[in-house]
Amino acid sequence: MEIKEALQKKNINKELEISGWVRFNRSSKKIVFIDLYDGSNLNGIQIVCKEELLNKKDFNLLFKAPLYSAFTLKGKIIFNIKKEKYEFWPFKIEYFSFSDSKFPLGKKDHTLEFLRLQSHLRIRTKLFQSIMKIRSYCSQLIHLYFMKNEFYYIHTPIITKNDAEGAGETFFVKTKNNQSFFNSQGTLTVSGQLQEESYTQSLKKTYTFGPTFRAEKSNTPRHANEFWMIEPEIAFADYFKAMDLGENLLKFIAKKILNNYLEELKFLENYFKTNLIENLQNIIKKKFNKIKYEEALNILKEGKLKDKIFLNDKFNFGDELSTEHEKYLAEIYEKGPIYIYDYPYKNSSFYMYKNNDNKTVRGFDLLVPKIGELIGGSQREDNYEKLINIIKEKKLELKELNWYLDLRKYGYAKSSGFGIGFERLIMFITGVENIRDVLPFPRTPGKLEF
Amino acid sequence: MEIKEALQKKNINKELEISGWVRFNRSSKKIVFIDLYDGSNLNGIQIVCKEELLNKKDFNLLFKAPLYSAFTLKGKIIFNIKKEKYEFWPFKIEYFSFSDSKFPLGKKDHTLEFLRLQSHLRIRTKLFQSIMKIRSYCSQLIHLYFMKNEFYYIHTPIITKNDAEGAGETFFVKTKNNQSFFNSQGTLTVSGQLQEESYTQSLKKTYTFGPTFRAEKSNTPRHANEFWMIEPEIAFADYFKAMDLGENLLKFIAKKILNNYLEELKFLENYFKTNLIENLQNIIKKKFNKIKYEEALNILKEGKLKDKIFLNDKFNFGDELSTEHEKYLAEIYEKGPIYIYDYPYKNSSFYMYKNNDNKTVRGFDLLVPKIGELIGGSQREDNYEKLINIIKEKKLELKELNWYLDLRKYGYAKSSGFGIGFERLIMFITGVENIRDVLPFPRTPGKLEF
Repeated sequence: MEIKEALQKKNINKELEISGWVRFNRSSKKIVFIDLYDGSNLNGIQIVCKEELLNKKDFNLLFKAPLYSAFTLKGKIIFNIKKEKYEFWPFKIEYFSFSDSKFPLGKKDHTLEFLRLQSHLRIRTKLFQSIMKIRSYCSQLIHLYFMKNEFYYIHTPIITKNDAEGAGETFFVKTKNNQSFFNSQGTLTVSGQLQEESYTQSLKKTYTFGPTFRAEKSNTPRHANEFWMIEPEIAFADYFKAMDLGENLLKFIAKKILNNYLEELKFLENYFKTNLIENLQNIIKKKFNKIKYEEALNILKEGKLKDKIFLNDKFNFGDELSTEHEKYLAEIYEKGPIYIYDYPYKNSSFYMYKNNDNKTVRGFDLLVPKIGELIGGSQREDNYEKLINIIKEKKLELKELNWYLDLRKYGYAKSSGFGIGFERLIMFITGVENIRDVLPFPRTPGKLEF
Repeated sequence: MEIKEALQKKNINKELEISGWVRFNRSSKKIVFIDLYDGSNLNGIQIVCKEELLNKKDFNLLFKAPLYSAFTLKGKIIFNIKKEKYEFWPFKIEYFSFSDSKFPLGKKDHTLEFLRLQSHLRIRTKLFQSIMKIRSYCSQLIHLYFMKNEFYYIHTPIITKNDAEGAGETFFVKTKNNQSFFNSQGTLTVSGQLQEESYTQSLKKTYTFGPTFRAEKSNTPRHANEFWMIEPEIAFADYFKAMDLGENLLKFIAKKILNNYLEELKFLENYFKTNLIENLQNIIKKKFNKIKYEEALNILKEGKLKDKIFLNDKFNFGDELSTEHEKYLAEIYEKGPIYIYDYPYKNSSFYMYKNNDNKTVRGFDLLVPKIGELIGGSQREDNYEKLINIIKEKKLELKELNWYLDLRKYGYAKSSGFGIGFERLIMFITGVENIRDVLPFPRTPGKLEF
C-alpha cells in the first residue's frame, strides 16, 4: 500500500504492508525511529520500531539501516494521540536492501551545484521530489486540459529537414561515419509548429507537446540545449482567441497545482524564499490585460523618466524588448501577467500575419513576473501570395517551404497558436532560478554524463 | 460552434455559427449540398444552401466552392424528417478561403503509397482523420491512466551519452562543423529506461512516453527510424506485477476507444477488412495468460508436428522467437494476447534479472494477434555484484554504467517495467499494416521531406 493511502483515517489499527526508503534513522537501545518515504507524499511516514514487536534479526536490521536503504514492512497503523500523528509499527521485514553507508547525499544540505553533479541521485532529496512531482503533474495537466477541450495531440517529428524557420542554431543528425541518413540533412526540431499546422488545417484544434532543441553555446541559468515545448494551434481563430486560450490554460494549471501540491509549494516557498502561492493565485484571479507593443514602449519610456535604470534604455519602434524590460512590464507595471501584441514586422518570424500598416505583425508574448516571456505566439499569415513575398523578403529558401505554402493554397482557415517553454513554466511555478534544476537530466554545452 | 455540438438535439431550429472544410459539393441551379467537416466528428454535417436564404454573392461562392475550401457560416440547424437527419441551412458567409481547384487529393480513392508522398495533406482524408484521431486519443489515454494510478511522468533525455544498452544502431548528434557539442558523443536515445530507473528509485511509480530512435536501414512495413515508446517502471515490484500493469493498461485503453471511437473503428474495419472491434473486445474480456519461454517452444514444436509450416522451425532452448512464431502463439494457439516469460540469458539485455538457474532471465513479452510483440519488459537485476559481472560478461563498458550501478548500491528496491511501441499499439487498434501510416510524418531511410 502507498504511504499516502496508509495515512488515511480508515486504516487506523489495521495491519498493512508498506514500502519505501529511509530518509532519517534515529536509534536508541530499545526503539528505532525511521522516516520512510515512497514518493506518494512529501513527508512519508514515521516508523516506530519496538524491540518487543520484532524478531531480533529484523530489529537489528532496522537499527543499523543507513540512509536510503529500501524496506518493505508489515505492521500496523497507530494514531499517536500525544503527537497527534499517525505512526507505523512494524512487526516484520518482507524485503530490504541496505544502502552503502557512503551515500554521497547525507543528512546535511547540499548546494544545487553539487546536486547537479549527481543528477541520478538528487531526486532522493525532498527538494527535487517537490520540483519533479510538480513537473510531472503539470505535464499531465496539459494533456488533461487539451483532452477536456477536445484538442488533438499531434506527435510532430523530432528529426526534421533543415530548419526552415531560422529560429536558431540546430543540431545535425548523422550516422557513425558522419553520413546523413535521409538523403537530405536531418536536424533536431526547434518547434513543431509548421508540421502541426498541416494537421490543424483538418482537425481544427490541435497541440503538440514534445522536446525541442537549440545548438546554442549559451551557458546561462535560462538556457538548455534540450527542453520541452507546448504548442497549441486553432483554425478559424484570430490571435485574440489564442491569447484567451493561453490564459485559460494557465488558470487551469494554477488552480490544480494549488489544490493538489500545496504542501510541496510551501516547502519550495520556504526553500527559495519567494511567493509561489501568491503568484499562482494572481494567475487565477487576474484577467490578463493585452497591450500593444507601441504602448509597452511608452510604459518603458515613462519608467525611465521615473528613475528606473535599464541596462538598455532605447525604446524606439523596432527595438526589441529584452528580459529586463519584460520583467519591468510584468513585475512593476502590471504586477501580474500581461500580453504584449502587434510587434514590429522587422524582427518577426516569416509565418506571422502582417498587418495592413505594413510595419507590425499579429504576434504576441505573455510576460509574467520573475520569468519575463512565458508564451510567444501569433496569428499566421494566411495569404498565399503575401506569404511568398515575406519568405523572399526574409531571404528564406522558398523551395523548402513549398509544402507549407500548400496549406495556404488549398482552403486555408485562418489559424493562430503559441508556444510555452515548459521549463519556464515549471520555474515560474516552483521558484527554481536555474533551468538545470527543473530538467531531470539537463543538457547544456559540454555536459553529458548520463 | 463545433459540428459535433451543433448536431445535438437541443440545437434544432437554433441560429448558429459553424466552421469547416468542404468535403463534397453537389450543386444544382437553386440548391447546393455541401458536406462540411471540422475534425470534431467523422462525417461532418450536411449543408443545404438555398438560393432564397442567401444573398446572390454568397450563394455563388458556395455554388462554386472547390473541395477543401474553408468556410465559417451563419445559419440554422434543421431536422429533416424525410431523411431523418440534421441539416444546416446557411444564410450568411462569415469567412471563406477558396481551395485551388487543382487540389491533389480529389474525390477518388488514392493508394496509401500515393498519400505518403503528401504527408502534409493526407490528414484531409477520412482515413487519416480516423487513424490520427485514434492516435491522439490513445496518447492522451496513456497519460490519463498513469495520472489516475498516480505514476509520475519523467521526461527522460533525448540526447544521451553513447548508447549503453547496445539496443541497436544510434544516431549521432553534432553541430554544423561536425563537432560533438557536449565534450562527449551525443546520440539519440533508444530507450528512456535506464535514466528513468533513477527516478523510480525515489518516486516508486514512474513512466516515460517520448520519442526514441534507431539508425537502422530497415525499409520494412514494421520499422521507422523515429517512433514513440511508453515505458512504465515500478519499484518494489517483481515482473508479474509489471505484466499485470500492462494488462490493465491495455484493457483501459481498449474500453475507452470502443466507447468513444466506435464510428472511426467501423470505418477502418470496412476499409481494411479486418476485425478491429472484436480484437479490442478480446483484450477486455480475456485474462492474459502467462507461459514460460520453454513452454512456448513446446507449443511451436507441436504446431510443427500438426503440419504448421514455419520458415524457421528450429525450437531449441536459446533460439529466438521470430515474428511468425509470435503470431502463431497469439493468433492460432491463444487466439488473443499472451505473455511469454523467462527468456534465455544468452540474448537478454544486461539489466535483466538473472534467475537462479543461471540460464534464464526475468524478461517477458506480450504477444498479440496480427502484430506479434507489443510489450517487452523485465524485472531488473538488483544485485550490485551480479550486475557488474553481467556487464563484464556481455562486454559492455563498465565505466559508462557507473551511475546506473550506483542505483543498486544505495538502497535498491527491486524494480520491474516494460516498453510498448506506441506505433505498434496504434497499428493493432486501427488495422493499419504499415508503420508509415500511423506516424504523422514518418522518418524512414532516405526519406525526409517535411
